[in-house]
Amino acid sequence: MDTLAKKYKQIDFAKIVDEVRVFAPATVANMICGFDILGFAVDYPGDEVHMYRVPEPGVRIRSIRGDDGRLPLDADRNTVSACVKALLEHLGLQGEIGVEIDLIKHMPIGSGLGSSSASTVAGLFAVNSLLGNPLTKDELLPFCVEGERLACGHGHADNVAPALMGGITLVRGYSPLDVIKLPVPNELYAGIVFPKVDVPTRDARQLIKEKVPLKDAVTQWGNIAGLIAGLYEEDYQLISRSMHDVLIEPTRAILIPEFYAMKDIALQAGALSFGISGSGPSVVAISKGKEGAEKAAALIQAHLTQCEIESLKYVSAVNVDGPKLIK
Amino acid sequence: MDTLAKKYKQIDFAKIVDEVRVFAPATVANMICGFDILGFAVDYPGDEVHMYRVPEPGVRIRSIRGDDGRLPLDADRNTVSACVKALLEHLGLQGEIGVEIDLIKHMPIGSGLGSSSASTVAGLFAVNSLLGNPLTKDELLPFCVEGERLACGHGHADNVAPALMGGITLVRGYSPLDVIKLPVPNELYAGIVFPKVDVPTRDARQLIKEKVPLKDAVTQWGNIAGLIAGLYEEDYQLISRSMHDVLIEPTRAILIPEFYAMKDIALQAGALSFGISGSGPSVVAISKGKEGAEKAAALIQAHLTQCEIESLKYVSAVNVDGPKLIK
Repeated sequence: MDTLAKKYKQIDFAKIVDEVRVFAPATVANMICGFDILGFAVDYPGDEVHMYRVPEPGVRIRSIRGDDGRLPLDADRNTVSACVKALLEHLGLQGEIGVEIDLIKHMPIGSGLGSSSASTVAGLFAVNSLLGNPLTKDELLPFCVEGERLACGHGHADNVAPALMGGITLVRGYSPLDVIKLPVPNELYAGIVFPKVDVPTRDARQLIKEKVPLKDAVTQWGNIAGLIAGLYEEDYQLISRSMHDVLIEPTRAILIPEFYAMKDIALQAGALSFGISGSGPSVVAISKGKEGAEKAAALIQAHLTQCEIESLKYVSAVNVDGPKLIK
Repeated sequence: MDTLAKKYKQIDFAKIVDEVRVFAPATVANMICGFDILGFAVDYPGDEVHMYRVPEPGVRIRSIRGDDGRLPLDADRNTVSACVKALLEHLGLQGEIGVEIDLIKHMPIGSGLGSSSASTVAGLFAVNSLLGNPLTKDELLPFCVEGERLACGHGHADNVAPALMGGITLVRGYSPLDVIKLPVPNELYAGIVFPKVDVPTRDARQLIKEKVPLKDAVTQWGNIAGLIAGLYEEDYQLISRSMHDVLIEPTRAILIPEFYAMKDIALQAGALSFGISGSGPSVVAISKGKEGAEKAAALIQAHLTQCEIESLKYVSAVNVDGPKLIK
């Protein structure tokens, strides 16, 4: 009971509000070369959670839009509600507080843009806001990682960390969870194209070899180190030279139609780098300036249209704020 | 002849001096977690090259001290003279200029402290100085890497880069050679202990497995990324959390007597990190402040003495200047 009492202390019941609406951003995990450790948030797309306080204790999903009926409404099976419930339990509020949730997805599921992370982060940021912000973002993060475990079967933080913290994040390690916010060069833009083909994260992961040549690993971590230095130095040429993935891309690219044609198009259009967003099939052209990202994404989309592959396109700066309250 | 003429242009014969003396620093390659990409220079130990201009064209070794007779005096077989010769040829001066060299080694060969790199860098910096500095440090670097290839059978730059550039260097990649100077936190000190046992670099490299688990590679590059961020942020705790080598140390430590006992001693003495310098057998305690490095190194040396293992000890800040002219 001592622990419970201590947890209760964090909550000022007078600060609890009746309703919040939250937008949480999509994210580009890996940032081309930083498999499983780097990621950044974008301004759009993203997911919305509208959360309402209700008299009856518990957590319920009221509605889900934009998921083509693919996500469960059952509060125990839905990742967002399950995470919100876990947080209320952590705060000793499970029998005290009732909330209902509208989830509005503005991005495709299974696109490699951190769809589940955006929803989870939106849900947890929403309930924390509703309760008057008892937890800091750092304290919320482990709950987001747990949500990712529920949604994807693994507790990687390379999507939830940037979705929650905003900007570019480094997940240095997991024991304990150690997330570092990296500097965001002002002119860094992402031109994202999602070819409408299905590449489930689990399959994309299973393709990856468990052992890799040390020689290639050294190349990869040289590039990762170069990218980190490039971000601090705001040296776009160094960033460009560093953003190469010699280990994961060659395998995952197999699952993405027209990957190398799109890469050629992006680089010829002047992109600093081009690669897979997360586990794909979305691809990303990283550019200096919005125009370059627009141009690369438009040319890539035009190529896919020629190949009779439907696609969606998003162009955005790096989002530095993470989730935000909306009207 | 056009090329030759062009090369000649770089040389102002009036600027050529008769004698230079150069000291080039020892280096700690890998910097614990950054296998083959990171390294830093120290103030001491290091090697000296005294170079004299003589009328007869060509490059000759006049004397070598401090090598216990292990290095060849034959100018074609000695790395230092071979590199100096290569540079003179590059400048089209092989038939024009004659130099003689005294090489004074102030550190043990095969210690894991970049002994051959220090000599090579001292030699090339000396001849460049003697000629009135026709080449920048960036231009000298490829000649230093070539020297490392002659000396060690591989063209790694993780020792020559910090020995020449000073400070902490990142070798991002080799095609083309891409070396980045990283920021040096003011209070970063190295307490180095060289146990007098023989671990040839070639053997130490051969022990390393050609394939590594991707999971461990991810841990390693998370740490590398954390270290780079820590250096930029001057965040000693992040530096400390990041400096772990899960891939190479477990294998190479086998060759180093009392490795894990020394590690315990260093960490208990408050070192930020402890590990192998280069391919060993020298070990290094990285500390915040000189006192900590002194303490760790002294305790390690005392332990080795108890185990009847002779050792040498060096304590130094990170050397930020690289090679220097001495009287």
